[in-house]
Amino acid sequence: MSDIMEARIAALEARLAEMEDRLAIYQLIATYGPAADSVSDHAVVGLFTEDGTCDVGGAGSFTVSKDVDDMILGPMHQGYVARGCAHVMSLPHLELDGDAAVAVNYSRVYARHGDHWRVERASANRWELVRTGEGWRVKHRLNRLLNGEDEARRVLQAAVRPSDR
Amino acid sequence: MSDIMEARIAALEARLAEMEDRLAIYQLIATYGPAADSVSDHAVVGLFTEDGTCDVGGAGSFTVSKDVDDMILGPMHQGYVARGCAHVMSLPHLELDGDAAVAVNYSRVYARHGDHWRVERASANRWELVRTGEGWRVKHRLNRLLNGEDEARRVLQAAVRPSDR
Amino acid sequence: MSDIMEARIAALEARLAEMEDRLAIYQLIATYGPAADSVSDHAVVGLFTEDGTCDVGGAGSFTVSKDVDDMILGPMHQGYVARGCAHVMSLPHLELDGDAAVAVNYSRVYARHGDHWRVERASANRWELVRTGEGWRVKHRLNRLLNGEDEARRVLQAAVRPSDR
Repeated sequence: MSDIMEARIAALEARLAEMEDRLAIYQLIATYGPAADSVSDHAVVGLFTEDGTCDVGGAGSFTVSKDVDDMILGPMHQGYVARGCAHVMSLPHLELDGDAAVAVNYSRVYARHGDHWRVERASANRWELVRTGEGWRVKHRLNRLLNGEDEARRVLQAAVRPSDR
Repeated sequence: MSDIMEARIAALEARLAEMEDRLAIYQLIATYGPAADSVSDHAVVGLFTEDGTCDVGGAGSFTVSKDVDDMILGPMHQGYVARGCAHVMSLPHLELDGDAAVAVNYSRVYARHGDHWRVERASANRWELVRTGEGWRVKHRLNRLLNGEDEARRVLQAAVRPSDR
Repeated sequence: MSDIMEARIAALEARLAEMEDRLAIYQLIATYGPAADSVSDHAVVGLFTEDGTCDVGGAGSFTVSKDVDDMILGPMHQGYVARGCAHVMSLPHLELDGDAAVAVNYSRVYARHGDHWRVERASANRWELVRTGEGWRVKHRLNRLLNGEDEARRVLQAAVRPSDR
């Protein structure tokens, strides 16, 4: 009887750990926008591993811990912040694989435009995550504009057609 | 003592199963956009039961497993895809009832429009879900444009005023 | 052995309770839009404590249970509803602290504008929540337009820079 209960407890622990992982990654992704839109460089850096990279197209990949100032204090982002902006992340599609995970979702940048807000960017995002001693962190973020080119569609496709990867 | 522990374990199992159901349905809904926007017909079909239907207004209900090509390869959707588009689902309001569930949320279709993205559709969605041997699947999706007419408001209303249903 | 199992069960109960709290607050926040957009005053009131307040800028804080009619039946909201509108809440950043919690997220109001929808408001939201006998309720909601002024950025900042609060 005790062995059966032990097995049930162990099964619960494993299942609960997966739920906690999912909610921790939701929380991580929900932190990105508030960190970016309040120009909180330490908070942005804290989402990534120390060697974590970000590739938003054009300039190629950069290391967030080194280049966050270019990202957050650069003219494009500062222009959005001055107008009033929201970097909003959608509920991610999430695949866990032990100490690694991949989240795929949409981001949109809304910026004030006279009496309303305009969607300045709509992108597909792939977040490659790893479990660290301090919790889940982003190892690589890939962001591609949904501008009709194939690249963004492939980001989305990889999430829903795993056998084609 | 052992009986009390057994009861606590059984209570945990039931509560955890509900959390897992909630997160599985979040995941299902977060899969729709990436599947549609990457024109992944098998992935769209995989979200629905074999007889699962979709009613997006106008043409009435269609059976997704049979008519996915009309949905995904039709001129309206292909036009959005060529311009660059994002079908984004909001965090759903979710009611579970054993092996059935109802999720209500907003969808928006963003499509590129010159140098920005425009919201081409904003809709209320009702997802009627069932638990199958392979997990949660959509039995019926109702989508109504939030265009000021009563129909979309009734979709939202049914989620928050259960006694009026 | 029994003591060790009891401790494992107690640990599971505490961890699961936190997951349930997180998902209950997601659900609460996902209810706001459907309640507001279907002009369901009782449902809006039901999200708040009896003395729960809302501060959307301009007019200062009001008590939702008393003033919901001004909020939901006022000319601004009714104008949106007549055109067709969606109050969409993003996945929140969430900090739990026993029987209190703070959620920070983005809200957007989409309203029909000819053949598309326009983002009429994009705001930072801070939801101060308390656990009550009937579940989590909102004690205070602060909403600030992301219009380039400092106030909205401070709402976001407080979520990601706890030491600066």
